[in-house]
Amino acid sequence: MLSPLTQVLSRTGLDALVLVPGANFRRVFNKDFHQMERPLAVIVPRAGEAVAVVPNLEMGSFQAIGFPGRVFDWRDEAGYQGAVMAAGEALPQLRNGARIGVEGQRMRVFDLLALQKAFPGAAFMDAHADISRIRLHKTADEIARLRQAIRLSEAALEATLGEIKVGMTETEIESILLRNLFAHGADGLSFAPIVAAGDNAAKPHAHARPGYRIKPGDALLFDFGGTYQGFSADITRTFFVKEVSDYDRAFYDAVLRANETGRAASRPGIAASELDDAVLNVLERSQFAAFCRHKTGHGLGLDVHEAPQIMRGNDQRLEPGMVFTIEPGLYRDGEAGVRIEDNVVVTESGIECLTSFPRALRLVG
Amino acid sequence: MLSPLTQVLSRTGLDALVLVPGANFRRVFNKDFHQMERPLAVIVPRAGEAVAVVPNLEMGSFQAIGFPGRVFDWRDEAGYQGAVMAAGEALPQLRNGARIGVEGQRMRVFDLLALQKAFPGAAFMDAHADISRIRLHKTADEIARLRQAIRLSEAALEATLGEIKVGMTETEIESILLRNLFAHGADGLSFAPIVAAGDNAAKPHAHARPGYRIKPGDALLFDFGGTYQGFSADITRTFFVKEVSDYDRAFYDAVLRANETGRAASRPGIAASELDDAVLNVLERSQFAAFCRHKTGHGLGLDVHEAPQIMRGNDQRLEPGMVFTIEPGLYRDGEAGVRIEDNVVVTESGIECLTSFPRALRLVG
Repeated sequence: MLSPLTQVLSRTGLDALVLVPGANFRRVFNKDFHQMERPLAVIVPRAGEAVAVVPNLEMGSFQAIGFPGRVFDWRDEAGYQGAVMAAGEALPQLRNGARIGVEGQRMRVFDLLALQKAFPGAAFMDAHADISRIRLHKTADEIARLRQAIRLSEAALEATLGEIKVGMTETEIESILLRNLFAHGADGLSFAPIVAAGDNAAKPHAHARPGYRIKPGDALLFDFGGTYQGFSADITRTFFVKEVSDYDRAFYDAVLRANETGRAASRPGIAASELDDAVLNVLERSQFAAFCRHKTGHGLGLDVHEAPQIMRGNDQRLEPGMVFTIEPGLYRDGEAGVRIEDNVVVTESGIECLTSFPRALRLVG
Repeated sequence: MLSPLTQVLSRTGLDALVLVPGANFRRVFNKDFHQMERPLAVIVPRAGEAVAVVPNLEMGSFQAIGFPGRVFDWRDEAGYQGAVMAAGEALPQLRNGARIGVEGQRMRVFDLLALQKAFPGAAFMDAHADISRIRLHKTADEIARLRQAIRLSEAALEATLGEIKVGMTETEIESILLRNLFAHGADGLSFAPIVAAGDNAAKPHAHARPGYRIKPGDALLFDFGGTYQGFSADITRTFFVKEVSDYDRAFYDAVLRANETGRAASRPGIAASELDDAVLNVLERSQFAAFCRHKTGHGLGLDVHEAPQIMRGNDQRLEPGMVFTIEPGLYRDGEAGVRIEDNVVVTESGIECLTSFPRALRLVG
């Protein structure tokens, strides 16, 4: 069960790793826990037995995972620090000069502060990337779950488009999309969906506005996804309401060409930076270069944003089994934005595109 | 705009506060941001101008909040550390010996590490409770939004009960509940819902099982909520499938008496610990004392779990405008669990119970 973490320890030379509930925890233990005011952490040392600190009310669920190590539980009225200190005493090898890796993008500061008290001689460092490498190559079962998340999300989008009418607000459309996602079998949301029209679509992470009604000529951008058994779809499509100007059509086409370039260039062996370069070059050499705001994409799996980041400066090479997004976008402040996002998996010879929703410019409403 | 934070600075004597996207950020700036691999932080010093570090692609959304201070943005290819360092240089008063408060339950470790590099002489400390006090007393508008979240969640539960049949799996029922939540107008989920039957209901934070079919005599516990404009309902009701044994009826009644005691005892001036004591005493003096696992409740608002924690050891006194849950539960490992959770707001003379779903023992299926 802990062997993926043991491998991370060997590879990094760290003395221990700490996992908190989240994607890596779920990959290792096949179980998720709420992460609120009650800390739960698993400490895996290079040598010796692993240790867990667990809220008492989670003990039934925790015992079901078959954790191979000592468990210190704590009750609400006692607080967690005592159990964390007991974990520290059970791991004397980690108290002086030990280097302990944590998930920097997941662990919260109060977890870290509690651990620092219990391991006063240890140095804690961000090993998020190293630990998350255990999820870099997806299994066939994981890809099947992602495929199902994408399938239901695309069906929900198609159903939503059929209900859209000029004059609806962004929040009304968001509400229709949400209803359709769950009617099609989503078991959760990848993230709060983005439904943005007109000038709001020029904000890459816009929020739906209750007061804005879509009107002819508006761009209408959906960035959304349902989850299925832990895996998140992350799909963007941009439509135009009723009509589209020639300028907006050219704007859309530039993004579409960048998206196509990204899908064509993706293959095992290419570096993430080269892929981002290929995609951004299309945008930067177009008449719309000034409207480019972000990288090409990010890995996708139990976390919605994970490795590999498809980004200049990241020399990680793509390998079969990696899953990521290709999502070039252009954003004209105050006017319109277009993004077209697909989810792909690297194969032995290229990629398979898991998303299949049509990309040709489409009028809605 | 920053005056609630200025008040926290005065009260605590801290030299600065750092806010990251989340409930406090939303309360101050009326805006939410995705919190993934791109850090976004606002630093408010006791003296001098506030500073923000913002991902470039969020600049359009960030500018819309009217932030009164300097903004350092960063692009994906450059990374965030440069912008954080620039923020450090813009705040020289925070570099030697300054005490900087952060949201320990919200800020992630990689945010903290980036800040520590930029403010090498400062001490960062967990000010989560102090900062979150800005949300302790709800406004009439906030209570109206919570009321709507509760209303739609209760309607979704009633609709769900009407569709339940013996032999359904927990995940099938969860899927029906999700569909009904969004059909009734939820704009998000308070948390991944808990739908747990039989022995699974004995785990306070159980996950629905695809393989377990509900059968006569099972407890069937729902702990769930939809959100509405940022506010989260958090409701638990427990039913029995088709029939209930005398023992389970007594078990249920003990929890119901504890819930009633909690609602009757809640009033301005009582300490959270006294209220927890009153509720837990009912359970601990019953024949089921051994099955008690957790505190009475927690505050509820923009965060699903926030202050006031209704917990022994917390001497905070209840005041008008505070909103919290009353959710006593009993858990017989391997057999059954019962929890009955209401959401209440403290008034001048007592409380108003915002949840109204009936609590009398009900058979379903």
